Amino acid sequence: MPTREQTNQLLTRTGPSEAMGRLFRRYWVPALLSEELPEPDCPPVRVKLLSEPLIAFRDTHGRVALLDQFCAHRRASLWFGRSEEGGLRCAYHGWKYDVNGQCVDVPSEPPESGFCSKIRLKSYPCVERGGAVWTYMGPPDQRPPLPEFEWTLVPASHRHVSKRLQECNYLQAMEGGIDSSHVSSLHSGELHTDALHKGTKGASYQRDARPQFEVVGSPGGLVIGARRNAEPGHYYWRISQWIMPWYTMIPPYGDHALHGHAWVPIDDENCWAWSMSHHPTRPLNKHEWEAIRSGQSIYADLIPGTYRPVANKDNDYLIDRAGQKTGRYYSGVKGISMQDASIQESMGAITDRSLEHLAPTDVGIIKARRRLLEAAHALQKGVQPPGLDPAAHRVRSASFVSSAARFADVAQEASLTAEAGTAHLSI
Amino acid sequence: MPTREQTNQLLTRTGPSEAMGRLFRRYWVPALLSEELPEPDCPPVRVKLLSEPLIAFRDTHGRVALLDQFCAHRRASLWFGRSEEGGLRCAYHGWKYDVNGQCVDVPSEPPESGFCSKIRLKSYPCVERGGAVWTYMGPPDQRPPLPEFEWTLVPASHRHVSKRLQECNYLQAMEGGIDSSHVSSLHSGELHTDALHKGTKGASYQRDARPQFEVVGSPGGLVIGARRNAEPGHYYWRISQWIMPWYTMIPPYGDHALHGHAWVPIDDENCWAWSMSHHPTRPLNKHEWEAIRSGQSIYADLIPGTYRPVANKDNDYLIDRAGQKTGRYYSGVKGISMQDASIQESMGAITDRSLEHLAPTDVGIIKARRRLLEAAHALQKGVQPPGLDPAAHRVRSASFVSSAARFADVAQEASLTAEAGTAHLSI
Amino acid sequence: MPTREQTNQLLTRTGPSEAMGRLFRRYWVPALLSEELPEPDCPPVRVKLLSEPLIAFRDTHGRVALLDQFCAHRRASLWFGRSEEGGLRCAYHGWKYDVNGQCVDVPSEPPESGFCSKIRLKSYPCVERGGAVWTYMGPPDQRPPLPEFEWTLVPASHRHVSKRLQECNYLQAMEGGIDSSHVSSLHSGELHTDALHKGTKGASYQRDARPQFEVVGSPGGLVIGARRNAEPGHYYWRISQWIMPWYTMIPPYGDHALHGHAWVPIDDENCWAWSMSHHPTRPLNKHEWEAIRSGQSIYADLIPGTYRPVANKDNDYLIDRAGQKTGRYYSGVKGISMQDASIQESMGAITDRSLEHLAPTDVGIIKARRRLLEAAHALQKGVQPPGLDPAAHRVRSASFVSSAARFADVAQEASLTAEAGTAHLSI
Repeated sequence: MPTREQTNQLLTRTGPSEAMGRLFRRYWVPALLSEELPEPDCPPVRVKLLSEPLIAFRDTHGRVALLDQFCAHRRASLWFGRSEEGGLRCAYHGWKYDVNGQCVDVPSEPPESGFCSKIRLKSYPCVERGGAVWTYMGPPDQRPPLPEFEWTLVPASHRHVSKRLQECNYLQAMEGGIDSSHVSSLHSGELHTDALHKGTKGASYQRDARPQFEVVGSPGGLVIGARRNAEPGHYYWRISQWIMPWYTMIPPYGDHALHGHAWVPIDDENCWAWSMSHHPTRPLNKHEWEAIRSGQSIYADLIPGTYRPVANKDNDYLIDRAGQKTGRYYSGVKGISMQDASIQESMGAITDRSLEHLAPTDVGIIKARRRLLEAAHALQKGVQPPGLDPAAHRVRSASFVSSAARFADVAQEASLTAEAGTAHLSI
Repeated sequence: MPTREQTNQLLTRTGPSEAMGRLFRRYWVPALLSEELPEPDCPPVRVKLLSEPLIAFRDTHGRVALLDQFCAHRRASLWFGRSEEGGLRCAYHGWKYDVNGQCVDVPSEPPESGFCSKIRLKSYPCVERGGAVWTYMGPPDQRPPLPEFEWTLVPASHRHVSKRLQECNYLQAMEGGIDSSHVSSLHSGELHTDALHKGTKGASYQRDARPQFEVVGSPGGLVIGARRNAEPGHYYWRISQWIMPWYTMIPPYGDHALHGHAWVPIDDENCWAWSMSHHPTRPLNKHEWEAIRSGQSIYADLIPGTYRPVANKDNDYLIDRAGQKTGRYYSGVKGISMQDASIQESMGAITDRSLEHLAPTDVGIIKARRRLLEAAHALQKGVQPPGLDPAAHRVRSASFVSSAARFADVAQEASLTAEAGTAHLSI
Repeated sequence: MPTREQTNQLLTRTGPSEAMGRLFRRYWVPALLSEELPEPDCPPVRVKLLSEPLIAFRDTHGRVALLDQFCAHRRASLWFGRSEEGGLRCAYHGWKYDVNGQCVDVPSEPPESGFCSKIRLKSYPCVERGGAVWTYMGPPDQRPPLPEFEWTLVPASHRHVSKRLQECNYLQAMEGGIDSSHVSSLHSGELHTDALHKGTKGASYQRDARPQFEVVGSPGGLVIGARRNAEPGHYYWRISQWIMPWYTMIPPYGDHALHGHAWVPIDDENCWAWSMSHHPTRPLNKHEWEAIRSGQSIYADLIPGTYRPVANKDNDYLIDRAGQKTGRYYSGVKGISMQDASIQESMGAITDRSLEHLAPTDVGIIKARRRLLEAAHALQKGVQPPGLDPAAHRVRSASFVSSAARFADVAQEASLTAEAGTAHLSI
């Protein structure tokens, strides 16, 4: 029986030799945005994933590669490298690698020597889907089918994908995505103003600050139902999805786009908060683009040339104490995403879960942790993790009003499957 | 017999499980300035004391509280919290705490569930005296009477209190306050120019750079006498007080105010240098206020919105090598307090006392260390520490000329008791 | 048989108790530039060498001293000290030290007490040669003769000496100086534009990117020959010198000055890259001074008042990706010295040599490491290290065209001895 401290370690450590790190390496990982490698032979990009320092580049033929960041020769960073003629050339002595990490040229050696054929850098396979470069960092013979999240399958016009640096462990960030009970407090200032929910019937039902939560397992993770009182005899239901190992889907509002996140470990004290918006049946509209561009909704203003938010821990998130006083911003921080980021980063790089006191509304968090631990343990015995089947990705969140008071009943009613060409269930 | 390294550890570590940390927790601690919490329901303030991260707030009724900085629920920082309607509400899920750390509301739970009554955050009692918020961090049944330093008892018009961040262990800072022999070197440039002593007869006697020190124990600490030659057959005596565990009192000059310090550990590598000035019988005058406002005397220019000095280790204390050359500033650093801070910070975060070579003038430092160690050891055997009785606080420093050459004799002559309505003994 | 990790530790650790640290302490060390102490009684300078924090000052008589940085009394930094009347006086209590570290005054004690005669700070002997202050940090009875590198012996007009901070271990920096094979890649953009080689016949021969390296031991280190094809039946030879423990000499171009480096450990994660240029028979000319002043050739633009380059790791070396694309700067970093510094710092503070894959062109690096390890081991058995005899310093690098294809033959031909008044062998 592990202690609470040991369980916290198990859940939060993601390096190659850690139990959770081995589990995560069985999934496709969103590694970087396609826009970061805008054209063939553009400059390479430093990428850190699951504590591994890597270099991404797009070769002359447009293929994306993810290699060990350091040249096999003298371990110089390939970030100074030149992508040219089908490979990345180290700036120090000109050693050149193709997208598979194979060394294809060592200028100081005659080609016939065969010297370079023996040199190969660690490399991970990459595919591009939905504006993101995905990679697989696990055992080659265990590579699962490609991910099929709906936002990766709709036309590019129907979708927006971005990411922001969050300076804490992935788990406390992801837990914020699972726990929708904080909306009534942390985001209460935005409930009727932000583009996320503005002008929808759903938003008006959220006055009930005491939702009932029910959580059931799904093939790929968890389905989380939150029930609020609506008109007499009716309930406002909001259904979230958590998909292994780090995806969360926010219940939608009216005809607005669907929104979701991926919480991807950079190392154990930083993660990428990926933000995805898509509409199943139409292009994103003017209002949605405005919200994206102005850092509203689930987006944030980023420091130009980086993915770090303008409001960050070094400037106390530009807290507006007057705005907090008037209730405009509940925590004084502007914007839903930075409200989440600031409060989660304030818990410390890795929060000490042995000191927390969970409440009934934390049932989703409790079950997600358990599912991660079970999957990590099962993997050690050779059991395949849940969520590898792309069918597990083709799900949606939903929001609706129903007379059904039991989650088992509404779960029947509601379509939670992402069926191409059909709109999502949303009020 | 502990080694010198072990003794240094004992003296400098102040966390909850350290010997010195346990000793310090038996005293009232100046925690923050009252001005940092200017009105009911103002923004909360992060406070770190003796290595514990805390949050201070002033509730709707004006009461000041000091709680664990992190919400009991998910350990979010209460710094983002809102002080409202008699308590501090966490910005994450709205859990609310009163000044005693009792959780009084969990919005997601019905009040009748009794959920919140079982939640209580660590809290320390607070009182306000003399412009400071005082707290007691020790065992509740051992709480001593409130402090009665004279500066806390005079009318507000007679006093000024401030603090500045010093980026080193409390002990080497406090030792500078005990050791007045450095005045003749480090502060020699200011001896006839600074507001602290300008225009007094006392300052003129300090030309004798070889004072004789005598140190005797007092009920609450030490009384330190420094004897310099005055007119033939006469001596200029300067009497300092060190009060357990971290108060020092500077001998006064003429009718100028009395000055003193408290050296309070933030953690083991930082401390608050509290600076207090008061006059027993009159309001501070125009000259004294000018010195305070311009960062002269024992005060420093602070970065607006913070208590960190403008001259600090990141900018080499704005050292003026030309001013040092001409002798205007002995060390090249401007101002008495920053001369002290810079030289003490230059010793490293925690100076290695196993490498020092003490001189006869360090007798006060030697005796203060011994007293701290003895008190920490005695406490482990259940002996009450010295200096808890407020009578120990109602003392003054003094300066005068006498024909007596022995400290035992002058200690009789001089009134070192802070008697309300009487002026201090000063030349 | 040590592991590769252990060997890497042995090679890179330079503190007083490390094997390599003990070896390095047998040599004269370039400690700082004479210009850093421009006149008698100027401000003292903080110096860190081989992980030891020291203070350098020039006393009233012009003598340079290097002492423990911290006063023996209370361990205040002597950086705040005043150099006056033949010694350095601590700003705290005025204790004064002469150039030998002997305490010569303690103002609070009567001179007749003899107190200060018992106080002595660690001090290292200093001499000035060639614009540098040299020190010896080893056992006093093992002090070798003074260094006689040619640049220290020519008239001041014939020489320039500077230094820049490099933020990595000395060894990976020095290895860049030994390995000239990277010129054809990393510095290829500068081969015909930079002042280092512009307009010389030698530069035109460097089109051959596949030089053959041969390395032979010399009394004081290694002689490294690189052979490139020249006109049919002829070879372009470039001869480098590596002198124990950290000197490298670049083969010259035409009548340009000779250039070299010293790679001196500050601590294990930083080093000084000393850069020296001299001409054996004439003053440096206008073009050479222009290159020096504009940060070309082996020099770099430094942040005013410091020896840190303007382009550094905090600003990604001001990388110019467009310039990299066009081939103007191979790695996108401007200037030969910053190309080296950036690529070497990118290997991490101490590169992990257990992960490298050396090539035939790395023979110089392999032999230099072996020589360092052998000398460190031999020293433990009492064997004097190589390179202490000043004759080992009086050598030169060279470049020439010869019909000889074997290094043994050209090594006979070429004059590699620094003979006063004779020009160097260069094409």
